[in-house]
Amino acid sequence: MHADDFGFGTQIRKSPYFDATVRWGAQGFSVYNHMYIPRDFGDPEQNFWNLVNDAILCDVAVERQVEITGPDAARFVQLLTPRDLSKMAVGQCKYILITNAQGGILNDPILLRLAENHFWISLADSDILLWAQGVAVHSGLDVTITEPDVSPLQLQGPKSGLIMQDLFGPEIADLRYYWLREMDLDGIPLIVSRTGWSSELGYEIYLRDSTHGDALWERIMAAGLPHGLKPGHTSSIRRIEGGMLSYHADADIHTNPYELGLGRLVNLDIEADFIGKAALAQIHAEGPKRQQIGLVLDCAPLSGPNTRFWPITQNGVQVGKVTSAVYSPRLQKNIALAMVDTEAAVLGAQVEVTTNSGVVGAQVVERPFYDPKKTIAAA
Amino acid sequence: MHADDFGFGTQIRKSPYFDATVRWGAQGFSVYNHMYIPRDFGDPEQNFWNLVNDAILCDVAVERQVEITGPDAARFVQLLTPRDLSKMAVGQCKYILITNAQGGILNDPILLRLAENHFWISLADSDILLWAQGVAVHSGLDVTITEPDVSPLQLQGPKSGLIMQDLFGPEIADLRYYWLREMDLDGIPLIVSRTGWSSELGYEIYLRDSTHGDALWERIMAAGLPHGLKPGHTSSIRRIEGGMLSYHADADIHTNPYELGLGRLVNLDIEADFIGKAALAQIHAEGPKRQQIGLVLDCAPLSGPNTRFWPITQNGVQVGKVTSAVYSPRLQKNIALAMVDTEAAVLGAQVEVTTNSGVVGAQVVERPFYDPKKTIAAA
Repeated sequence: MHADDFGFGTQIRKSPYFDATVRWGAQGFSVYNHMYIPRDFGDPEQNFWNLVNDAILCDVAVERQVEITGPDAARFVQLLTPRDLSKMAVGQCKYILITNAQGGILNDPILLRLAENHFWISLADSDILLWAQGVAVHSGLDVTITEPDVSPLQLQGPKSGLIMQDLFGPEIADLRYYWLREMDLDGIPLIVSRTGWSSELGYEIYLRDSTHGDALWERIMAAGLPHGLKPGHTSSIRRIEGGMLSYHADADIHTNPYELGLGRLVNLDIEADFIGKAALAQIHAEGPKRQQIGLVLDCAPLSGPNTRFWPITQNGVQVGKVTSAVYSPRLQKNIALAMVDTEAAVLGAQVEVTTNSGVVGAQVVERPFYDPKKTIAAA
Repeated sequence: MHADDFGFGTQIRKSPYFDATVRWGAQGFSVYNHMYIPRDFGDPEQNFWNLVNDAILCDVAVERQVEITGPDAARFVQLLTPRDLSKMAVGQCKYILITNAQGGILNDPILLRLAENHFWISLADSDILLWAQGVAVHSGLDVTITEPDVSPLQLQGPKSGLIMQDLFGPEIADLRYYWLREMDLDGIPLIVSRTGWSSELGYEIYLRDSTHGDALWERIMAAGLPHGLKPGHTSSIRRIEGGMLSYHADADIHTNPYELGLGRLVNLDIEADFIGKAALAQIHAEGPKRQQIGLVLDCAPLSGPNTRFWPITQNGVQVGKVTSAVYSPRLQKNIALAMVDTEAAVLGAQVEVTTNSGVVGAQVVERPFYDPKKTIAAA
């Protein structure tokens, strides 16, 4: 929505960075976890180039945290995910799936371990606070589950490392991929992690006191300007290039991890119980009936992401749907994530896609569409 | 957002009436339960007058249903709400609160009993599907919990009864307030209930097969046009006049039923257990620390609903916040729902409210602000 449409009540929350993002040029917002998220600072292709060439600062306060503490916190968190957490250290982060009893995906968050019995689940768009509190009711485990006053920013892009060093000193360069550190900036309490939703070098900065939202945003932008930092938003182009999921688009409660090729996040052989274990074991044994694939669409550059799930046919029979599609100006290709019947998930195969502008040919290709390591190796 | 901004992917769902509402003039949408809801067909005051004088048809497919079936369905549903359901008949609807173990409100839905062990929970904006599935995990109860393909419309306003008779025949006039009936229209499968979120005479029409969305919308509009039916949206003006809650604005997980004056929805003396019983008993014994009040603001007509929670002070001390405020063109007053410390909840008391345009005086008044029965009695 546009800036003049912000106001239809208090039913949707505003981020502590809301005023700052409007001041810095946010023109359009979406809604995620009952909160506004800026999704438009002008041209989305420019935002993409800002991200891949320099750095962008994104308000992702919509990534609400579910905080789990208490003597049984570690046991409880393991109950929530099929991923083996037995070796997860304090200070570590993990990308996890949260599944229901049928093995369906409820969320694909980042799990942060702040202390032995202190976890944050940094959410995609669903009320895992309610899921976790619901599971706890009859679990017999001693846990406390709340939404703390925590609001993340994402500082992403190749220059983000230099900006972080200017902000936090050179030792921040030692922070490893998917690790976190407790920090402060001019007394503002933070958690900093080397994570993000961009497939680029990047950091997430979790503000632990929302009254400092404006000050934190301005402090980071000031440090970043000499490095070319721009205000921005999560880039659909870059995340699709990287094959990253957008929950509700590429996965939902009816999607299981094997369909997404994410079996590595399901550890059926661990001793601990987790919700969905029996169902996932059965799906694993039988093999998933659908598979996520990559597609390259043979048509003129798409003017923007798909606004519908586009049907995919092969020999006139529907075999699946495009879940996320966009034109990549770097690859100069229309790339798409899609879910199809397993029989149709054949690399190199040709299919037809019914887009908003008609039927186009498409080829099944590998994901991710762009991987800097592979590109370098090939160069 | 505006019509040209609909498209940033498939992450937010579209209602089966989406195309119809755009065709009929929807200009702006909000997001509710991960789905677009039309919130702008032009002037909101005109929408209010259309509702109170004639009738409006509203796409409320965002009221997603949680379907609970299975041999223990009735026991499970009672577990979810403090309201006594022991006398709830098949065919009846009830306004209920769903509370967590701390007595905090997670949702304020309509519960529908379609059969002995077949319930729908027609939701406000939170993922009660996840809450219910989570509670079920260790509950030991034999239930199946899903989101069915059900998409409600609201037909609301004084002419809605006549339109319903034209659609369904004269016997629909017998449908009592908060009762439901299984119906069909030209073979389109429906549930019809005499409920709504408008404080006016009205019906909800639950489409049970989304492929018929467009046909159903057009059929109702065609029947309604001779009666002055207009496409519309839920009216903030009318619902605030009626003292109806908007979840996240007027209540959230930190609000308990007693604070809202909704003790009638909490039956502590029933034998059955429900989630939050112990916490609510304690709150009831101690008395709530806050109370919802009505306010009349002494200032020029507000240009639209409040976009922030406005602080309320009394003698320079903050005592609470305005949660929903709007100008009522019928009452010619600025009316507001607010949550204040119990000591400040005194009818007739004066407070100060810090609006976007400065500090204004306000008086504590009774809710609802407008009650046709009282107005008639006084007349």
